[in-house]
Amino acid sequence: MINITFPDNSTREYESGVSSLDIANSISPGLARQVYAASLNGETRDLSRPVNEDARIVFHKWNDEEARHTFWHTSAHLLAAALEELYPGIKFGIGPSIGNGFYYDVDPGDGKVISESDLPVIEKKMKELAKQKIGIERIEISKARALEIFDKKGDEYKTELISELEDGNISLYKLGNFVDLCRGPHLPGTESIKAIKLLSLAGAYWRGDEKRKMMTRIYGITFPKAKLLEEHLLMLEEAKKRDHRKIGKELELFSFSQKVGMGLPLWLPRGSELRQRLIDFMTAELKRRGYTIVTTPHIGNVELYKTSGHYEKYGSDSFQPLNTPQEGEQFMLKPMNCPHHCEIYNASPHSYKDLPVRMAEFGTVYRYEQHGELHGLTRVRSFTQDDAHHFCEPDQMKDEFKKIIDLVQWTFKSLNFTDYTAQISLRDASDKEKYIGSDENWEKAEKAIIEAAGEKGMQTTVVEGEAAFYGPKLDFMVKDAIGREWQLGTIQVDYNLPERFDLSYTGSDNQKHRPVMLHRAIFGSLERFVAVLIESTAGKFPLWLTPDQVIILPVSEKYHDYSKKVLNFLNNSDIRTLIDERNEKVGKKIRDNELRRIPYLLIVGEKEENSSTVSVRKQGKGDIGTMELEEFTNFIRQQVSEELNIK
Amino acid sequence: MINITFPDNSTREYESGVSSLDIANSISPGLARQVYAASLNGETRDLSRPVNEDARIVFHKWNDEEARHTFWHTSAHLLAAALEELYPGIKFGIGPSIGNGFYYDVDPGDGKVISESDLPVIEKKMKELAKQKIGIERIEISKARALEIFDKKGDEYKTELISELEDGNISLYKLGNFVDLCRGPHLPGTESIKAIKLLSLAGAYWRGDEKRKMMTRIYGITFPKAKLLEEHLLMLEEAKKRDHRKIGKELELFSFSQKVGMGLPLWLPRGSELRQRLIDFMTAELKRRGYTIVTTPHIGNVELYKTSGHYEKYGSDSFQPLNTPQEGEQFMLKPMNCPHHCEIYNASPHSYKDLPVRMAEFGTVYRYEQHGELHGLTRVRSFTQDDAHHFCEPDQMKDEFKKIIDLVQWTFKSLNFTDYTAQISLRDASDKEKYIGSDENWEKAEKAIIEAAGEKGMQTTVVEGEAAFYGPKLDFMVKDAIGREWQLGTIQVDYNLPERFDLSYTGSDNQKHRPVMLHRAIFGSLERFVAVLIESTAGKFPLWLTPDQVIILPVSEKYHDYSKKVLNFLNNSDIRTLIDERNEKVGKKIRDNELRRIPYLLIVGEKEENSSTVSVRKQGKGDIGTMELEEFTNFIRQQVSEELNIK
Repeated sequence: MINITFPDNSTREYESGVSSLDIANSISPGLARQVYAASLNGETRDLSRPVNEDARIVFHKWNDEEARHTFWHTSAHLLAAALEELYPGIKFGIGPSIGNGFYYDVDPGDGKVISESDLPVIEKKMKELAKQKIGIERIEISKARALEIFDKKGDEYKTELISELEDGNISLYKLGNFVDLCRGPHLPGTESIKAIKLLSLAGAYWRGDEKRKMMTRIYGITFPKAKLLEEHLLMLEEAKKRDHRKIGKELELFSFSQKVGMGLPLWLPRGSELRQRLIDFMTAELKRRGYTIVTTPHIGNVELYKTSGHYEKYGSDSFQPLNTPQEGEQFMLKPMNCPHHCEIYNASPHSYKDLPVRMAEFGTVYRYEQHGELHGLTRVRSFTQDDAHHFCEPDQMKDEFKKIIDLVQWTFKSLNFTDYTAQISLRDASDKEKYIGSDENWEKAEKAIIEAAGEKGMQTTVVEGEAAFYGPKLDFMVKDAIGREWQLGTIQVDYNLPERFDLSYTGSDNQKHRPVMLHRAIFGSLERFVAVLIESTAGKFPLWLTPDQVIILPVSEKYHDYSKKVLNFLNNSDIRTLIDERNEKVGKKIRDNELRRIPYLLIVGEKEENSSTVSVRKQGKGDIGTMELEEFTNFIRQQVSEELNIK
Repeated sequence: MINITFPDNSTREYESGVSSLDIANSISPGLARQVYAASLNGETRDLSRPVNEDARIVFHKWNDEEARHTFWHTSAHLLAAALEELYPGIKFGIGPSIGNGFYYDVDPGDGKVISESDLPVIEKKMKELAKQKIGIERIEISKARALEIFDKKGDEYKTELISELEDGNISLYKLGNFVDLCRGPHLPGTESIKAIKLLSLAGAYWRGDEKRKMMTRIYGITFPKAKLLEEHLLMLEEAKKRDHRKIGKELELFSFSQKVGMGLPLWLPRGSELRQRLIDFMTAELKRRGYTIVTTPHIGNVELYKTSGHYEKYGSDSFQPLNTPQEGEQFMLKPMNCPHHCEIYNASPHSYKDLPVRMAEFGTVYRYEQHGELHGLTRVRSFTQDDAHHFCEPDQMKDEFKKIIDLVQWTFKSLNFTDYTAQISLRDASDKEKYIGSDENWEKAEKAIIEAAGEKGMQTTVVEGEAAFYGPKLDFMVKDAIGREWQLGTIQVDYNLPERFDLSYTGSDNQKHRPVMLHRAIFGSLERFVAVLIESTAGKFPLWLTPDQVIILPVSEKYHDYSKKVLNFLNNSDIRTLIDERNEKVGKKIRDNELRRIPYLLIVGEKEENSSTVSVRKQGKGDIGTMELEEFTNFIRQQVSEELNIK
């Protein structure tokens, strides 16, 4: 008999060899129907796999990432099984689950092509197979036998993968006739896959190497209920409408130029202003919170990055160092701002009385991304972090953490991100050599993070083994209006750079001490943050932030003079106002400017001119009445200050 | 007989072979005593050289650069003559006049050293020689003969120089026993050199090549009157006190780090804020004047710079291009912002109705300077230009020029630069092939500049042949409080980039046209401008700009609480305020903080606490009375708005 411990710490006895699914059923058949995977002592496993020893069990329902990954992983195999029936001789690359769904990279064979129009047929075959309630079988196998099987099948991609594996650790999964090299975990069978949609096709080089075979990548998603798929497809449609690349173009916020270089955003006037408004908004708050702002160059001598360790880290797959006319002199585009900030810290001596030093910079960094990885403003080659470093005494760490969390909460609230969580990443306590810094320091830092997050009422998940080698961290994820999660800010403890740059302060004991360094960003990167803002608001920014707040629509040319008076009045009141003097019907002007997402439209005609008023329309809401200019100005100011004075 | 025409267009006849000095004497001996050189048909010449043909003559008095250069050039020879007497066998490199004085690079011979302590002796010898009223003789000579003379003398530096000259164009100048290879012009004799000062010594590689001999460079300056030397030495002393590198350190404005890289400024918090304040100040004004602001990356693909022509121009003596993991892909640090702005212009179509487009950016550019050329913030390797480009119709050029000149005048006035001039650089009309663009365009542009400057009441000098190859330009020079001139802003017409980037707009005729592009900067570079501001104000910035406006000095610890109330009150009123809580006598606190150049010091003791007031001291002025907090706030605000609301 074995003892199984549940999350509430209760324990039950089972026969050795019992499956997780049996255990779920023993509690209630209702539970068994809702779970897709189980973690045993922290390792996610097939529900059908036998449990042979005492273990803590956690069941994963649909809302757990582990459940969805298992579900989509099995769905990838289901796709492969369908393909093998439809395209005999097809060869398989890899088929993982991803954030939303799964894909499989396949090679249909010389001269054969899978196109968009084939997807419905493949989808149909998948549904047929799913309905057959095929059980999924795990087979543990030797390397030699695995090679033999796939060699015989002629699947050279799989044999290449197997040849790189260590013997003794290889498993296959069998779904009907389809056998795949796979670590798992998988569903017990196909019957829970009720809703299936193949989404798109793409080309993908085998192992990401442009010199190797271009495979066909088939993307799909599946759900245990038709309704979930419907919701997801609606979300995808909505996401398409909100694509920041599309809206960024419509609103003339940013642009890219092949000549300047892909992945290097050119901020157009309206985008540049919006970006600057975010910077000013954050800077003002940073000053109130005791930060100082510094400005450093975008390059640094390689010696700086040899000291920091970045020279090694940003190697041959990065922007390369550049030479100068002086022999042996080399500079790098800065991949991070921290080395520069360490040098500023070192530019003057520090006493414990000066700490914490909170040094902030909107610092632009450069990281090379493959051309195919670039995506609008979310994956770029240069981006501006709202970066800051806190240099503090070890005992100040928790307090600094709380202060940063408070700033994050304040910022998210100001920008209407109400739904967010945080992940605390700790070190893997069973593999301490991987990490730099003493046990005592790590314990202090991890405790500080956990307590600070708790005291600030953060909803957190704690993940062991996900810390950086130089310290534990806390990452913030916000959920947008259509339910997508975006990673934004981060707080990271660093024991490494203070050593490498020999940072110090004089303590109250008159001795030299090593400060702790915290890296933190709230927006993360301005580029990414603007993208998230666009996708989250569909381009309808908060009034304080939006490029143009008001547009005046004269009903005919007769009212251009009065319109200009209104324009001057509002611009002089620092309300960002435009005028639409096109020779168009007012109905068309309203429609066009609603599309430009300008929050307020002012209709101006005879009545308004005679009474020195404007007729106000709110974007998406329609007419909200006639106002005098002073009244309208106050109305706008009121809304802006409500948006910003949230404390 | 020859005809000599004077600047007032009057003409006199002289015997052929008359000297310029004779001509001056023929007008008045008083004039002859004041002139040091003459230009004949635009060429500056020795006063003693015979005039053999009709010519326009301009006499150069001390205030003309031509006069000072001639004076200092002869003084360099005088230095050399003195050295030759004191150090027989000494060898000579080059000995030019410079902006302020002259130097001579010499090689005293193996094992011999000239040190600071030798300068008074050399100076004394120069004075002796000058008093002997030695005449200076010009000798035109063949290359073979020149080589023979210096070869015989063993002066290998001179023979190297001569060997590179073309025959038929070589002249020597003889001052007593000292004969030098020289183009001239020179004074007629040494008698007008009344005041002599050798200033310093430095090492300088022969021909700037670090692989060649390190010469001894002796700097000196001379004047026709002792009083002028006294004034100059006072100015030098004052300049030393105002050295922006020294003050920048004292005020903690900026720093450099060998590891980050020399010539790459790190802006410390106070400097970064000051810099940002300049940016905000200018940005607000730019928006009022119809500019849009853009933001572009600090790098660009080499293809961009091949299109613009910068790739060729910034060659092997510049920062080199950097590679990426993608074969053949290269990026450059941007040496200029214009190519990026052209790409933004091209990102959307333009109609004549949209022009002029005024696109501004505080854009950081990178230019490689030799290590030895770097100097504080005035010669750096990365600097931020307050750059803008006007894209306009050719007929709009004059108007745009006037608008820019107006902005320059407004800016200089806001920053208390009241003494400035401008140089208009035109093409050399006799060598038109050197320039790109049609005759018609050049004439239009040159006329536009000259008229615009005239209509805006600018004091200008016009120099032919100094235009860039792509268009004429206007450069602004400001004189600082101690009489030094600094070049700041510039306006340049460009016919080249619009061609290279194929810029266009649709005219009212519905045809494609090429816009004219104007480059312009007002500050020039922020780094240089801050240096000039520091040197010009000795670190006493205008109140609106200075990092810390006010400091509170509690007379003892008892008043710390009240001091903090005052601090909060002022900071909440956006007055940048510090507090000096050191346990020091108030006298010392006053002295220390005066040195920190904080404009207002508030003394706080029992009397002030009881009456809720502060005792106000103005930096450098002393006590200006007791004020209530509200009153003091208004007082500061008043001064700031007086400084800024100058229109």
